[in-house]
Amino acid sequence: MPETTPVFLDEYVSLHPADLADRLQRLDTSEARALLQQLPPEKAAAALADLEEERLPDLLGAMAPPSLANLLQHIAPSDAADVLQHLVPAQRRETLAAFSADAAAAIRALLKYPEDTAGGIMSNRFIVLREDMTVEQVRELLRARAQEERTEDIAYLYVADTEQRLVGIVSLRDLVFRRAERRMTEIMNREVRFARVSDDQEELARKFEHYHYLGLPVLDDEGKLVGVVKASDALEIARKEATEDMQLMVGLSGEERALTPWPLSVKRRLPWLYINLGTAFLAAFTIGLFESTIAQWTALVVFLPIVAGQGGNAGMQTLTIIIRDLALGEMAPGDGRRALTKEIILGLVNGLAIGLVVGLIGWLWKGSATLGLVAGAAMVLNQLAAVIAGVMIPLGLKSVKLDPALASSIFLTTVTDVAGFFFFLGLAALGLKWFGA
Amino acid sequence: MPETTPVFLDEYVSLHPADLADRLQRLDTSEARALLQQLPPEKAAAALADLEEERLPDLLGAMAPPSLANLLQHIAPSDAADVLQHLVPAQRRETLAAFSADAAAAIRALLKYPEDTAGGIMSNRFIVLREDMTVEQVRELLRARAQEERTEDIAYLYVADTEQRLVGIVSLRDLVFRRAERRMTEIMNREVRFARVSDDQEELARKFEHYHYLGLPVLDDEGKLVGVVKASDALEIARKEATEDMQLMVGLSGEERALTPWPLSVKRRLPWLYINLGTAFLAAFTIGLFESTIAQWTALVVFLPIVAGQGGNAGMQTLTIIIRDLALGEMAPGDGRRALTKEIILGLVNGLAIGLVVGLIGWLWKGSATLGLVAGAAMVLNQLAAVIAGVMIPLGLKSVKLDPALASSIFLTTVTDVAGFFFFLGLAALGLKWFGA
Repeated sequence: MPETTPVFLDEYVSLHPADLADRLQRLDTSEARALLQQLPPEKAAAALADLEEERLPDLLGAMAPPSLANLLQHIAPSDAADVLQHLVPAQRRETLAAFSADAAAAIRALLKYPEDTAGGIMSNRFIVLREDMTVEQVRELLRARAQEERTEDIAYLYVADTEQRLVGIVSLRDLVFRRAERRMTEIMNREVRFARVSDDQEELARKFEHYHYLGLPVLDDEGKLVGVVKASDALEIARKEATEDMQLMVGLSGEERALTPWPLSVKRRLPWLYINLGTAFLAAFTIGLFESTIAQWTALVVFLPIVAGQGGNAGMQTLTIIIRDLALGEMAPGDGRRALTKEIILGLVNGLAIGLVVGLIGWLWKGSATLGLVAGAAMVLNQLAAVIAGVMIPLGLKSVKLDPALASSIFLTTVTDVAGFFFFLGLAALGLKWFGA
Repeated sequence: MPETTPVFLDEYVSLHPADLADRLQRLDTSEARALLQQLPPEKAAAALADLEEERLPDLLGAMAPPSLANLLQHIAPSDAADVLQHLVPAQRRETLAAFSADAAAAIRALLKYPEDTAGGIMSNRFIVLREDMTVEQVRELLRARAQEERTEDIAYLYVADTEQRLVGIVSLRDLVFRRAERRMTEIMNREVRFARVSDDQEELARKFEHYHYLGLPVLDDEGKLVGVVKASDALEIARKEATEDMQLMVGLSGEERALTPWPLSVKRRLPWLYINLGTAFLAAFTIGLFESTIAQWTALVVFLPIVAGQGGNAGMQTLTIIIRDLALGEMAPGDGRRALTKEIILGLVNGLAIGLVVGLIGWLWKGSATLGLVAGAAMVLNQLAAVIAGVMIPLGLKSVKLDPALASSIFLTTVTDVAGFFFFLGLAALGLKWFGA
């Protein structure tokens, strides 16, 4: 395992915090803890801010609150809040008590917002200008704060009134060439786009992509400017949400990684496998209904995986498209019905195309025209069931305020298995009765 | 369908270009074409730059090259290049010929890079400074270019030598408060991070997220500064790549939307369904090998969907995690083997947990201890096959330079169906021989 070979401390210190976080990620807990203590505190803290959140309780749980506060004071309050959020309440409380009053207040202000809202994501390190400030005064302000970390990568400055309400926005570019005596009221742009603290993070990421924002100011319920969200935050959200959707679909927690320790993976995956098992028994019972038909005509059995497989695959195609379009905000009201109509036409066309082939193969392989007819017709019906389930499952989950992706592939294959076996074996029973095998 | 209700032209004109693109997206081709002609050209062009690419050939294919050039001259060369890339070569060539020589050259310079590389994504509208320029001169330059579109949302300016090679970077913030006579050589930061024109877009998005960039300069093979990529581009890439991965997994093109016209959807989905059909016949043949066993012991049949369903679900869990970790760049060399070891342990634990339940139910439901034992053991073996396939399929696809997601769920369910039926029916045949049903 070359990636865990010990290296000299100097090598770690010279890394970008994000790369340092990657290295920490790959170390055993004890090694990672030892490294955190040896690193200069500002380096260690910056790396913590970039670490996968699921490692935090493990790495920091044993750390004394004063040492932890000492470490976290080196990063922005929003990053410190993100780290603290993943510790147990007692440790969080005691660590906050060990901060200076100002720093603790800044962090507490952020901790009150849910993690998946604009409030939970925003940074509260930003520069606010007063309306009556001159360009010269702002230049002085920027010079004085030039050394301050993490405010440097901004393109905009925000202008607020005396009650801290956002009234305008000034670009750095304007400040570069405007005359020194001009006031902010004269040069600011009053049409400011913003987010609310309670805005959902997925919606926020969508807006960033749609409108190509570099950053958005965030207002609280009273219209006061309380933070800013950056494009890099939106990128992180978009990637996390996509991962979550993919994982939820197949019965995963949304947070699992390839190298998540296996006991944790068992705890997260096994419940979904048991749910899948329950639904698989529904398919089993459906087959059970026709056991006597199968006993008379065992050639039917080989077609069961074809019925199930084709229905499952077609349903997954539809399901994936609907879930992704919902996540990307591309489904407007009324689009659900239009998508359903389209998918039904599609299911019919694909069903006929597949049914014809399966029917012919069934006839030629097993020498029974009845079998061919039954298998072909079951294909058409099951393709229809598959596309309808593919549209209705995510829309149904959404309508009861659940994530449209949640375990959706498990529900889908239940529908396609049960419907497929019912159509195929039901038609076979009729065929057997009317025409014989 | 309220969203296609005709509205007054004024309402369209007042929309943000991204919102206007959304509206165009929802109109019939003929309506959309009519609207494009009525809109002011700069509005129409801006909306085209934000439109889903698959609509472009349809909307613009019939437009005369001079009219199209007239429209596209209102947007940045990189946006114009993106639009032109989706038209047939003849129309592209003639449209380019109708541009001014300068504009055509700027667009051609971008068209030579593949669409999914940094070169294909970058904008070539950026401000380059010379090393010997003073702060005062740069301020003048910015003032002169203040009205120019699309260069406003930048935080950095790039400094190049006489051969156009990037030598440093200056933040707008520095320019705000530095003394007027300072030269760029004195104030610029010489440690500049950059991308190469040939860099893969997925890798680029990864870097933006990892290092929280707002923008990155792009260098050609000779080290010359030729463009910039912005954080909003990275966000768009990340969302497209995630959509593509999700779609490829289940046999979709990566570009389909809920409202893609159905004939196009049939064309894209049916080939994969036929491939899935071919693989489903492998599962059918596996069952066919044991038709005489099933004829003697029809109770086996109800367990087939349970074997297939549990294997498929467990395999999809593993597959999804590996594909997503590969896409997010979280699999370092050596991680594949570690993930495989982890998944095998997991498959064994989950297999035992599921096998026990299925075995008990099998025994109690059908009153046969042999059936319980056979079903339970087949579950354990198939869980192992599922997790191994879940790791090996994406890594295998990647090793032959294919997308790790490509049709992976189709391959996976083939393995779990075939292996599951083989283990279950094979063990049942042995059980029948040794103990009787």
